[in-house]
Amino acid sequence: MVQHKLYPLTAIVGQDNMKLALILNVINPTLGGVLIRGEKGTAKSTAVRALAEIIPSWAMNEEYVSASLKVIDLPISATEDRVVGTIDVEYAIKTGEKKFEPGILAEAHNQILYVDEVNLLEDHIVDVLLDAAAMGVNVIEREGISHSHPAKFILVGTMNPEEGDLRPQLLDRFALSVEVYGEKELSKRMEVIQRRLQFEDNPDIFIERFNDDQHNLRNSILSARDILKDVVVSDQLIEMAVKIAIMNEVEGHRCDITMIKTAITIAAFENRTKVNVEDISRAATLVVPHRLKRKPFEKRTFDTAIIESVINSYQVLQ
Amino acid sequence: MVQHKLYPLTAIVGQDNMKLALILNVINPTLGGVLIRGEKGTAKSTAVRALAEIIPSWAMNEEYVSASLKVIDLPISATEDRVVGTIDVEYAIKTGEKKFEPGILAEAHNQILYVDEVNLLEDHIVDVLLDAAAMGVNVIEREGISHSHPAKFILVGTMNPEEGDLRPQLLDRFALSVEVYGEKELSKRMEVIQRRLQFEDNPDIFIERFNDDQHNLRNSILSARDILKDVVVSDQLIEMAVKIAIMNEVEGHRCDITMIKTAITIAAFENRTKVNVEDISRAATLVVPHRLKRKPFEKRTFDTAIIESVINSYQVLQ
Amino acid sequence: MVQHKLYPLTAIVGQDNMKLALILNVINPTLGGVLIRGEKGTAKSTAVRALAEIIPSWAMNEEYVSASLKVIDLPISATEDRVVGTIDVEYAIKTGEKKFEPGILAEAHNQILYVDEVNLLEDHIVDVLLDAAAMGVNVIEREGISHSHPAKFILVGTMNPEEGDLRPQLLDRFALSVEVYGEKELSKRMEVIQRRLQFEDNPDIFIERFNDDQHNLRNSILSARDILKDVVVSDQLIEMAVKIAIMNEVEGHRCDITMIKTAITIAAFENRTKVNVEDISRAATLVVPHRLKRKPFEKRTFDTAIIESVINSYQVLQ
Amino acid sequence: MVQHKLYPLTAIVGQDNMKLALILNVINPTLGGVLIRGEKGTAKSTAVRALAEIIPSWAMNEEYVSASLKVIDLPISATEDRVVGTIDVEYAIKTGEKKFEPGILAEAHNQILYVDEVNLLEDHIVDVLLDAAAMGVNVIEREGISHSHPAKFILVGTMNPEEGDLRPQLLDRFALSVEVYGEKELSKRMEVIQRRLQFEDNPDIFIERFNDDQHNLRNSILSARDILKDVVVSDQLIEMAVKIAIMNEVEGHRCDITMIKTAITIAAFENRTKVNVEDISRAATLVVPHRLKRKPFEKRTFDTAIIESVINSYQVLQ
Amino acid sequence: MVQHKLYPLTAIVGQDNMKLALILNVINPTLGGVLIRGEKGTAKSTAVRALAEIIPSWAMNEEYVSASLKVIDLPISATEDRVVGTIDVEYAIKTGEKKFEPGILAEAHNQILYVDEVNLLEDHIVDVLLDAAAMGVNVIEREGISHSHPAKFILVGTMNPEEGDLRPQLLDRFALSVEVYGEKELSKRMEVIQRRLQFEDNPDIFIERFNDDQHNLRNSILSARDILKDVVVSDQLIEMAVKIAIMNEVEGHRCDITMIKTAITIAAFENRTKVNVEDISRAATLVVPHRLKRKPFEKRTFDTAIIESVINSYQVLQ
Amino acid sequence: MVQHKLYPLTAIVGQDNMKLALILNVINPTLGGVLIRGEKGTAKSTAVRALAEIIPSWAMNEEYVSASLKVIDLPISATEDRVVGTIDVEYAIKTGEKKFEPGILAEAHNQILYVDEVNLLEDHIVDVLLDAAAMGVNVIEREGISHSHPAKFILVGTMNPEEGDLRPQLLDRFALSVEVYGEKELSKRMEVIQRRLQFEDNPDIFIERFNDDQHNLRNSILSARDILKDVVVSDQLIEMAVKIAIMNEVEGHRCDITMIKTAITIAAFENRTKVNVEDISRAATLVVPHRLKRKPFEKRTFDTAIIESVINSYQVLQ
Repeated sequence: MVQHKLYPLTAIVGQDNMKLALILNVINPTLGGVLIRGEKGTAKSTAVRALAEIIPSWAMNEEYVSASLKVIDLPISATEDRVVGTIDVEYAIKTGEKKFEPGILAEAHNQILYVDEVNLLEDHIVDVLLDAAAMGVNVIEREGISHSHPAKFILVGTMNPEEGDLRPQLLDRFALSVEVYGEKELSKRMEVIQRRLQFEDNPDIFIERFNDDQHNLRNSILSARDILKDVVVSDQLIEMAVKIAIMNEVEGHRCDITMIKTAITIAAFENRTKVNVEDISRAATLVVPHRLKRKPFEKRTFDTAIIESVINSYQVLQ
Repeated sequence: MVQHKLYPLTAIVGQDNMKLALILNVINPTLGGVLIRGEKGTAKSTAVRALAEIIPSWAMNEEYVSASLKVIDLPISATEDRVVGTIDVEYAIKTGEKKFEPGILAEAHNQILYVDEVNLLEDHIVDVLLDAAAMGVNVIEREGISHSHPAKFILVGTMNPEEGDLRPQLLDRFALSVEVYGEKELSKRMEVIQRRLQFEDNPDIFIERFNDDQHNLRNSILSARDILKDVVVSDQLIEMAVKIAIMNEVEGHRCDITMIKTAITIAAFENRTKVNVEDISRAATLVVPHRLKRKPFEKRTFDTAIIESVINSYQVLQ
Repeated sequence: MVQHKLYPLTAIVGQDNMKLALILNVINPTLGGVLIRGEKGTAKSTAVRALAEIIPSWAMNEEYVSASLKVIDLPISATEDRVVGTIDVEYAIKTGEKKFEPGILAEAHNQILYVDEVNLLEDHIVDVLLDAAAMGVNVIEREGISHSHPAKFILVGTMNPEEGDLRPQLLDRFALSVEVYGEKELSKRMEVIQRRLQFEDNPDIFIERFNDDQHNLRNSILSARDILKDVVVSDQLIEMAVKIAIMNEVEGHRCDITMIKTAITIAAFENRTKVNVEDISRAATLVVPHRLKRKPFEKRTFDTAIIESVINSYQVLQ
Repeated sequence: MVQHKLYPLTAIVGQDNMKLALILNVINPTLGGVLIRGEKGTAKSTAVRALAEIIPSWAMNEEYVSASLKVIDLPISATEDRVVGTIDVEYAIKTGEKKFEPGILAEAHNQILYVDEVNLLEDHIVDVLLDAAAMGVNVIEREGISHSHPAKFILVGTMNPEEGDLRPQLLDRFALSVEVYGEKELSKRMEVIQRRLQFEDNPDIFIERFNDDQHNLRNSILSARDILKDVVVSDQLIEMAVKIAIMNEVEGHRCDITMIKTAITIAAFENRTKVNVEDISRAATLVVPHRLKRKPFEKRTFDTAIIESVINSYQVLQ
Repeated sequence: MVQHKLYPLTAIVGQDNMKLALILNVINPTLGGVLIRGEKGTAKSTAVRALAEIIPSWAMNEEYVSASLKVIDLPISATEDRVVGTIDVEYAIKTGEKKFEPGILAEAHNQILYVDEVNLLEDHIVDVLLDAAAMGVNVIEREGISHSHPAKFILVGTMNPEEGDLRPQLLDRFALSVEVYGEKELSKRMEVIQRRLQFEDNPDIFIERFNDDQHNLRNSILSARDILKDVVVSDQLIEMAVKIAIMNEVEGHRCDITMIKTAITIAAFENRTKVNVEDISRAATLVVPHRLKRKPFEKRTFDTAIIESVINSYQVLQ
Repeated sequence: MVQHKLYPLTAIVGQDNMKLALILNVINPTLGGVLIRGEKGTAKSTAVRALAEIIPSWAMNEEYVSASLKVIDLPISATEDRVVGTIDVEYAIKTGEKKFEPGILAEAHNQILYVDEVNLLEDHIVDVLLDAAAMGVNVIEREGISHSHPAKFILVGTMNPEEGDLRPQLLDRFALSVEVYGEKELSKRMEVIQRRLQFEDNPDIFIERFNDDQHNLRNSILSARDILKDVVVSDQLIEMAVKIAIMNEVEGHRCDITMIKTAITIAAFENRTKVNVEDISRAATLVVPHRLKRKPFEKRTFDTAIIESVINSYQVLQ
């Protein structure tokens, strides 16, 4: 296998929402993935691949994320057989024993499953992906023989909205979503370019420079994992989350539940065991926008004023 | 096989029509299935899967529902071979004996056949499904060899109307239909979210909490099954049902017949052996709306005032 | 094989034209089939299946209808191989002998060939069906080997006009056509519903109730078959039929010929050996409407006044 | 093989142009076929099939038409393999010898090749048909092996213009074309109907009735064949034919040549050895109309006045 | 193989440009082919096939045109395998030796490759044809095995512009193009018809009549080949050719180069070793028209006045 | 294999941008390829093929470009198997050992990968090409077996914009792009034509004439490679490049980075170790135009005034 030097996650300039969304999923793999939308050349792929570096293998002993966190690619040209795996029907008929050739979903179990250009994925692959993501199980059925195996993964998709959008059904299945833009401020953009040129010039020296930042981030994530189960959220904050969903006219309940779970994970990442108003507010910006109802010929945009007005209507005591 | 804890049917907040429609089909499997329409995240799947828990295996000794009620999934990516089963033609030619590999329809016999996203099912699969549903028999024909087996099942479909509608022909084949919405009332929606969070936190304790409700519902269903054959309906109520169908301009007769059979089942569920006006009215809301004629560029909506005016035109004596 | 109780033909409320068209085809199988158009739930299938019950096997000793009249289904998902049959090419090459696996057309010989949703049939299946129907012979050609067998059948198609119409070429091949509607009159519709509920409740008792009607109908059909060859039609009536076709601007001659043959069969069914004006008039309503020329953006409807004016222009002496 | 009684060609009422065009092709098989256009039910097929009866096997000893004239059907569902024949590649590789399985074109050699609904034929079949028709040879090439055999046939196509038209390239390849209509005159239409009813009633008696007419037609055809080589055409008449083509703006030269050859054949059929003006005029109506240039949104119709004006401009001496 | 008598090239009435373009390609096979556009029945195919007769086998000892000049047909239904040839992969794997089954391009080497209805050729066949034509080499690649062989041929395409046009990319690859029309002048058209009738009547006598013309043409072509290498063109004439291309707004340079090479070949055909103004002018009419830029909704036509004005602007001394 | 004489790169008249872009990629193969857009006949292919001649094998000992620089063709008809290579699954199953048949991407490693008519390439081939180009690795996955190998290549695409454009995603992946036009100035165009005629007349003499130019260019390229690592770029120039990208509203960062790397390579080609303003300006014209955002119904063109205004706003000290 060919090896690449990975650009460190902490060396990415700006893009805080994208980095936060990815980290939250590593802390709490039950959140349900993240969709990153942005134009070409905005470091989407770089960030996803950098994520695996954050958690070294010795630190993994949880239920969901096992020995070594990997980024498993699901190429958009992958066949259904390659994704779900295959059953050797002939073998089964001859020997009476089932022989299963595992696919990408088996490989992705307890890992990050990464779909670049997720909006170009064929519909029937999307369907099997959604089924597995929803159930945490991959079921294969061929000519009367069936096989299943666990398939819990952190689903990360990236897409360029210029090349078409996702079906609402698939959008809702991504717990979080973020939009990324190229930097427009001169000084920041120069920083992006200079870091990139330095990395290309000598990756080892560049990576060395960010060793401490990477180490600190790793420790924060590991602490957050430890206290995640102890984080509590008040009924008032739950009500607030539900109100935000209602006022944004989000119909189903997955939005509200994910908002609260995201807020809990943010609190853990900040080393607190109590969710606060700010956590709910930040969680809302990650879970609400891609679930707004789209109407024909109308592009509905997310209005943060709604969140603020809900929050202000409370005199929250913490 | 991977096991899941099922969310109890009685723990679902609201959604009374959906729960009623599902329960009526379990009481009287000859009714003909139910179509559940609603946006993503409205507990449609949860409810269907919860249904199987309601009737434990020891209670089954009827014609239609045998040893153990199961929910058989018909994935929208299933091939026709997988749905209807296959005949091993080579074997037949060599040995002169027929060898049939049963498919999903065979598995679904005497069970719940569940099609999620039924509106995305391919047309030729819909056709074989309808044929089997209408006849109670699955016929497989391959290269001159044919095989048939009984295929009586409770057909349950769920769909998100945002992703396209069903052909009228298929709509009519679902005996009942209900529309579900996310809760819009704050207190109820909070209840939904809190129950879900509690279930995710500790499923065993949560399930324990609803043990009595589940037990009571099971008993009601079993009693209803016992008295179903004894329920009678007056000619006046039959006339009322026919009038409701005529005034809604529903052309075929399947609507009227299903309305009366549904009313009979509702009476049985309420432990009565005599259908009353209210039963007809409730049955009408389950069988009429999806059978209204659609005209081009016109979305016809169901008007409950028609039902009321028909009912009021009678001086019903019960 | 799974067995079903058949709803008796004589128990169907109303729908006189549909029943007449079906019966005429049984009396005179050379007529050329019937197309039944109507919305879902209007007893189309019920009537077709009931037809086979009418003529028990002991009564068959004619050229066209042999030992036992059956309804052979042509499912719209049937492959061309299944419809026309297959030739075992490998066998032929090895042994020099032809081995033919008969298909649905072989099975349909001397029977009723029933195509439900005939308007959804794929075009190339329609083509082979029309070829066989026109010639009374089914020809199979595969890689240089060819086989043929007689394929005379009563072609019965049903369709729901909401789901698209037939090509004119195919329409013309159905000798007769009828339109059926759901009953709109309250008392009749109640009768429909009550009979259906009674049949579902206890089919044996219900069937028993119509035994005499069924027996009488059978006898009428058998007598009609006996005298069919003796029925005569005057030149004046032939001229009248031709005039009706010309005034309706029906171009080909199949319409006129079928009108006269239908009138002859009606006379036989009414136990007469002389066709009368009324027979021509009734025949016209069965053969003209589906042969009217359709022009773009214009829906031409059948006008019975044309028939009346033609008839009135004669002082028919009988 | 199943046998049918054929309706005699001479029993067809009217349709003189169609009958003439068919007969001319039998007299002179190098003419190049005929296309018959007309609505359903206008005896097109009947006439084509009747043609084979006209020339009994004992009379055939010409170059083109051998032992027994047959009508070979080219069904529109025929595969390319079935039309052109196949080469057994495996056999060739194993044995070094070529094994060819002849197709419909081989069968059609020296016969009538009949394509019903020729406008529905798939484009690639049309292409091979045209290639063979133009060359008189059928060439088959498969994986580097090639085979050829003579394929001279009288190409007869029928079509219903309601179902779409032919490509100009294909139209030009039919030497002659005729349009047929249902009879609109009452007395003639009655004659059509009565003959048809008589034929269906007792085909043998009916055929007997036309024995003399058939016999006379056969003799005329055989005499015409004998004198065909002796028929001469004056330069003035050739000039007239060319002028008719030019004034109708027919671009290619196939029109002029076919017109003269058709006129020659007409003269022979009328037992003359000298073409006259009338022959040119009748030939023109058979060869010009389907070669008129079609312009977008304009339906150009054939104007017989052009022919007359050309003819009148000559003082033809014969 | 079936043999045909070929109509002599010199017997074709008119169509001088078409005949010239074909002959120039035989004299100088590096020119790059010719595209003949014209309606049906304008002797396009006749001319191409007649070309092979012109150069008998004993006269061939050049680099490009070997032992015997043949017209190789590329039927529009030919598969890619048949065109480029196939590699027997299985054989290669088993024996380690490459086995290549040559296709039409191999057969066409040093011959005329004739594509009738070239505008109907499938795009991927066009692509391999262009690749081979541009490189003079045919490269076949199958599963990692590759083979190449020389494939230099005179590409001759004919097409009917009524059936759609060629892609500009393909048009540019034909060195020359000509448009042919049916004769519109009466006397010439009569000559066309009479010659054709005479040829059909007795091909041998007709061919005999043109023996001398054919012999003279052959000698001219052979002399032209001999002096082709000695023909010179002045810089002024080259400048004139470039100016003609620029003023016609032809962008690429293939036009200019081909114009000069064509003029050189014309001079050789006229037995001169010095190109003159007239040669450039005639060459321009063969190479410019099909390379004019087409703009949407505008049909640009070739204007010979441009050529004349360029030529007049010089005081050419020869 | 058939051999061709290659037209020398230095003999191409004009087209400086195209030649520069190609040479820069040979000096610095990490740049990322070039897309050449222009009409037919503008020497695009000639230039690409000429490139390989420039660097003889003895001069290659770099990381990217190994023993001998070759132009590997990716024909647009190539199958995915041929591009990525294949895994012999059967062999793997039988022997447990992996057998990989390398494809075009393996062959292209350390070479020039040339795609003519890149805009006609099928989408799924484009996808695998982009994946390999982005990663420098080709990954093949078939039925559970996977293989990877390095695939670093200089991607050169040519296209005729008349035949459709590229997807933005693919455009961005080409580091540089140039537009080429046919020469419009008379004297230059004559030079083009005369050189071409001379080359065709006697390639060896022609090539000889440009030996010195070719030798000098080779030396410049080799020197440039030597000093490439030593070229420095000031922060002010980096800022300038970033500003140019921002003012052209290019969103991602690939544009800025490529602009600087291109400027560095230009400096090296001019034998300098310090980038200057002119280098940035020339680099901008090669990297910005094809990355401008396209809006519906608006063709945005590249405006060099923007570059000048950015540069003028600095008082650059070098």
